[in-house]
Amino acid sequence: MAKEKPSIPKGTRDFGPQEVAKRKYILNTIEKVFIKYGFMPIETPTMENLSTLTGKYGDEGDKLLFRILDSGETFEKIRNSKFEIRNQNEFNNSITEKGLRYDLTVPFARYVVMNRNEITFPFKRYQMQPVWRADRPQKGRYREFWQCDADVVGSDSLLHELDLINIYNEVFKCLGIDVEIKINNRKILAGIAEVVKGIEHLNTIAVAIDKLDKIGKEGVSKELTELNFTETEITILFDIISIKGTEVEMLESLKIKLQNSTEGLVGIDELSFIFKQINLPIHRETNQLINLKTDFSLARGLSYYTGCIFEVVAIEGSLRSSIGGGGRYDNLTGNFGLDGVSGVGISFGLDRIYDVIDDLKLFPETLSQGSSKVLICANDSIENIELAPVLQLLNKLRNKGIASEIYSEKINVKKPLEKPIKYASSKKIAYALIYTENEALKLKNLENGFQEELTIEEIVEKLIG
Amino acid sequence: MAKEKPSIPKGTRDFGPQEVAKRKYILNTIEKVFIKYGFMPIETPTMENLSTLTGKYGDEGDKLLFRILDSGETFEKIRNSKFEIRNQNEFNNSITEKGLRYDLTVPFARYVVMNRNEITFPFKRYQMQPVWRADRPQKGRYREFWQCDADVVGSDSLLHELDLINIYNEVFKCLGIDVEIKINNRKILAGIAEVVKGIEHLNTIAVAIDKLDKIGKEGVSKELTELNFTETEITILFDIISIKGTEVEMLESLKIKLQNSTEGLVGIDELSFIFKQINLPIHRETNQLINLKTDFSLARGLSYYTGCIFEVVAIEGSLRSSIGGGGRYDNLTGNFGLDGVSGVGISFGLDRIYDVIDDLKLFPETLSQGSSKVLICANDSIENIELAPVLQLLNKLRNKGIASEIYSEKINVKKPLEKPIKYASSKKIAYALIYTENEALKLKNLENGFQEELTIEEIVEKLIG
Repeated sequence: MAKEKPSIPKGTRDFGPQEVAKRKYILNTIEKVFIKYGFMPIETPTMENLSTLTGKYGDEGDKLLFRILDSGETFEKIRNSKFEIRNQNEFNNSITEKGLRYDLTVPFARYVVMNRNEITFPFKRYQMQPVWRADRPQKGRYREFWQCDADVVGSDSLLHELDLINIYNEVFKCLGIDVEIKINNRKILAGIAEVVKGIEHLNTIAVAIDKLDKIGKEGVSKELTELNFTETEITILFDIISIKGTEVEMLESLKIKLQNSTEGLVGIDELSFIFKQINLPIHRETNQLINLKTDFSLARGLSYYTGCIFEVVAIEGSLRSSIGGGGRYDNLTGNFGLDGVSGVGISFGLDRIYDVIDDLKLFPETLSQGSSKVLICANDSIENIELAPVLQLLNKLRNKGIASEIYSEKINVKKPLEKPIKYASSKKIAYALIYTENEALKLKNLENGFQEELTIEEIVEKLIG
Repeated sequence: MAKEKPSIPKGTRDFGPQEVAKRKYILNTIEKVFIKYGFMPIETPTMENLSTLTGKYGDEGDKLLFRILDSGETFEKIRNSKFEIRNQNEFNNSITEKGLRYDLTVPFARYVVMNRNEITFPFKRYQMQPVWRADRPQKGRYREFWQCDADVVGSDSLLHELDLINIYNEVFKCLGIDVEIKINNRKILAGIAEVVKGIEHLNTIAVAIDKLDKIGKEGVSKELTELNFTETEITILFDIISIKGTEVEMLESLKIKLQNSTEGLVGIDELSFIFKQINLPIHRETNQLINLKTDFSLARGLSYYTGCIFEVVAIEGSLRSSIGGGGRYDNLTGNFGLDGVSGVGISFGLDRIYDVIDDLKLFPETLSQGSSKVLICANDSIENIELAPVLQLLNKLRNKGIASEIYSEKINVKKPLEKPIKYASSKKIAYALIYTENEALKLKNLENGFQEELTIEEIVEKLIG
């Protein structure tokens, strides 16, 4: 067999023990909060039928789907039908029928429709799984990455928006990341479009102002001018989205500007309700002050949102990109034949959250512990000594739930601890238990070098305590 | 957008909340034991380069790989090179360069080679991830399924074989499944081949006797006869693999039969060592009697094993297929340019273990609890009452770590508990907390219907305790 220099596909990563521990710490933190708020887990397959995936993420999204080559005689098929297939798209469709999960929302909608008769609504589900996108890899953007989603479907109640905001707040408090939770409402954006130029321009306006952070006011103006917006229209637009003040003041000012848009006023009412409830004394008492800010320029790319929209950014450190987002959608399951099921959901981006915590050095120290607590060493290579009492020792420790192992390799008899301690240190094992035939056991603390003679019972007590 | 009836690819499955809980229970049980034995986690990408995967699983395996269609102009490529591409294999190779993980062992070998300079050996890693095979789906065989592997690389010591057997024993004891752990040694198989017809017939013999369970002695004899084995050779073979007795007696008898095979005798020594240590009094004392049985007909398909081989089968219930297996391999990383690294590993098949536990009804009752413990209900729809005190109540419960939620939907005022209790029952929520303005709180146990008036502090105490 040829010897190759191994590599992994670009945009993908291996995770070693330390990284797995850190990722699990984030996942566990998120999951605990999801559960505390009454969400239940589901998991969907890595592969979905392309009929489920295509057309849900826009043309750009369709291009970024990873497609699975069909089993069987695809070559025959192509060779025999060369006159029918004219382009890449037809080629793709004739040799692939499955693709990798692109997000968790569409598979969830598909799940809800397929299981509608077993589900009691409102259905509150969480899902934490990897997704794949054939994006150009760059810093902070991977081709395989994890999303952690919580969604409620089958309820219009704004109580769920409140819950989701509280979840964001609680998770990031637990992780120690200071964040700003931005909120807007697609109905407000609709109202703005109505007032500026007409509701039919909603998407154009949303796409343009979504770029405000990146290309500035000037860039957005230029873009809109090119799309035949007049100077007056652009002035009215910026006049609205640059409203400043407290949240209450901002909403009051907006109410006046959108007074002729029924839909816009509904959006304002929804945000007002949320701010009223979020600012309940309970939050202030328990030091859970939520950094929730209206941002009338927040639009988010996906066009299926119909109510509140959220975005979370870290406000410390060098990484200011979005680490979470979501919103309310009124008809996601409609694609699969189930109309009138409203839903609202949020997503956490595990990999970006990881990068932020790493950048801010916020991972707890204890996570970097290796998996064993004790390494049993002897004064000779393990194959030269009587094994039974050593195995008995090992068994006693493990029976008490203490993670432990024996150093299995040949040692240098003149420096019997040298190799074992190097090994222990690489795994961050805290103690060496030194076994010598006919002698007392010695327990050595590998951090400070302190060594003491103890009975096995004393050792167990010390290590459990 | 067209409305389609949604489905998922054949051989894949969705998992609802109950199934996720049960799968996690198995995964957590396995993981705890792995950690107690000093193994550390890694994770590898879902997609691997096909150069990493192909040629490692035999021709049959290569056919079962799921291949990812390359991004970009694959159609152009095929159209322009129609005279060069002559068959399915060349077609596949010209439009795909990545595939889905087929097992955890090859990616692990690739990982070890890529990270050889950072790893301290022996490296004890565990890995619990899904794998994909384009097998024909059938009962108990899926196209997406999970493996849970523990391997040690960089050590020849048989202590690791001991550890892995103990891990199998401990995990299945914890799960309540009675199993038989079958053990054999490829060196013994080599010795048998030597004695029967010559070492060059090792694979033929291994493949044939591996089918003993399925096609019986007669079937194996027929197959070997067709492969030009004489009647005498076949008699010698069955004479050896049907040796009966205690493990010690069997190994003693085998020693005589294989006395002319140096390799065979080494294999016998290895098994003798393992049986000697496994039968230490410590195991009997702690009721950890291990059901380890030699089986000289155990061969296992994969040809990379070089020492001990294991297979685990459940011995109760209707599902007797293999739920785990593994063995020692001397040169797995050799494929990737790193020679002389011996390793030994075992694998747990999550999905089959799930099916066995389900069949034997061994899942703990408590797993079927929904995620919330309390559902807060009111005597009117939540939008008609003052929300602040209800949210305060909810917050108090959650701040104490009690999973809880509010019933968010419209209710029938004449039967205010009807809909909330239906909802709670579907999620297996244990308590309803009935809130009425200006009245005391009532806590209703939804299992037995018992209801009592309590203060919020009493409720918290009751639900935490």
